[in-house]
Amino acid sequence: MANRIITISREFGSGGRTIGKMVAKELNIPCYDNEILEKLAEESGFTKEYVKEQSEYAPHPAWFMNTLLNRNGHGMSNQDYLWIIQQRMIQDIAEKGPCVIVGRCGDYILRDRHDLLKVFIHADFEFRSNRIIKVYGETEEPTEKRLSDKDRKRKAYYQFYTDTEWGKAENYHIALDSGKIGIQRCADIITGLF
Amino acid sequence: MANRIITISREFGSGGRTIGKMVAKELNIPCYDNEILEKLAEESGFTKEYVKEQSEYAPHPAWFMNTLLNRNGHGMSNQDYLWIIQQRMIQDIAEKGPCVIVGRCGDYILRDRHDLLKVFIHADFEFRSNRIIKVYGETEEPTEKRLSDKDRKRKAYYQFYTDTEWGKAENYHIALDSGKIGIQRCADIITGLF
Repeated sequence: MANRIITISREFGSGGRTIGKMVAKELNIPCYDNEILEKLAEESGFTKEYVKEQSEYAPHPAWFMNTLLNRNGHGMSNQDYLWIIQQRMIQDIAEKGPCVIVGRCGDYILRDRHDLLKVFIHADFEFRSNRIIKVYGETEEPTEKRLSDKDRKRKAYYQFYTDTEWGKAENYHIALDSGKIGIQRCADIITGLF
Repeated sequence: MANRIITISREFGSGGRTIGKMVAKELNIPCYDNEILEKLAEESGFTKEYVKEQSEYAPHPAWFMNTLLNRNGHGMSNQDYLWIIQQRMIQDIAEKGPCVIVGRCGDYILRDRHDLLKVFIHADFEFRSNRIIKVYGETEEPTEKRLSDKDRKRKAYYQFYTDTEWGKAENYHIALDSGKIGIQRCADIITGLF
């Protein structure tokens, strides 16, 4: 079966989101990224900032503490509640038609689909460091810390909810080093696999 | 700098060797695979079978035991001795001109070269299982055991000598699932990056 859905997992600063948008534009299909966050906020009733924060941090290691501290009317932690909505939302998006989904554990949530192409984008520290300064600007926090904090959080969240190792080649159909290969070239390769 | 050397690491049965040969043929450059094994045997004085066996098993966890059991006239274990020759041999091959190198920790040995493209080929169990029966024939040993044994040995050997995790996406410039993407398509993508 041909690939209809492309999920893009990425290291922070690797250009994964940009590549996703380029692929979607070239293929003339929607790219879901911030839209998922906005819909999650809308459906859950939380603010967009809260949703972003909750879905970027792995739950507290003491599971019951997390549930006690963040419990809501559904008898579960806010994070679990958001995870359930997110799963349904991404499954619905995939049902609608061909698309690109950036992040949000899309690769895991849609793992049983045969029309799924799972992509991972990464790059070395130097490339990502230069890129986050260019894209997001300088901050007081050192670049190294910004990169490692963000990656650590993504990894922890992913591993918590999927029980799968983030960044392991065998979990993706294609993994590309955007620093070595180039952002445009990465987008071209992925587009060619659709 | 353009890529001149392509190293291919691969899971057993994924078609990595075949892909390497196809890429080399298309680019009209040499592909080193069994040749390295033969040269290692020639230079070390060991038989080809012994070299193959030694360079596929990780040294004994009790390092000193390994040295005691396999010591030779060079004051080191046979495995370490072979590793040293292998490193020099692969560096010499890369110096000679553009080529494809399959396995043998080529990616690690040549890691400081800027003209290196590091490739990892993998595939799911079903694809690899069918492929090893087709390529190597049936044996009394169950396919599952053949695959896991070989991968385990490759991983252990690689990790012992390189102190780097085998199969982690960030250690390669491109990692491809040959079962999903197809062997010919993988070869085409890699050729396009040369």
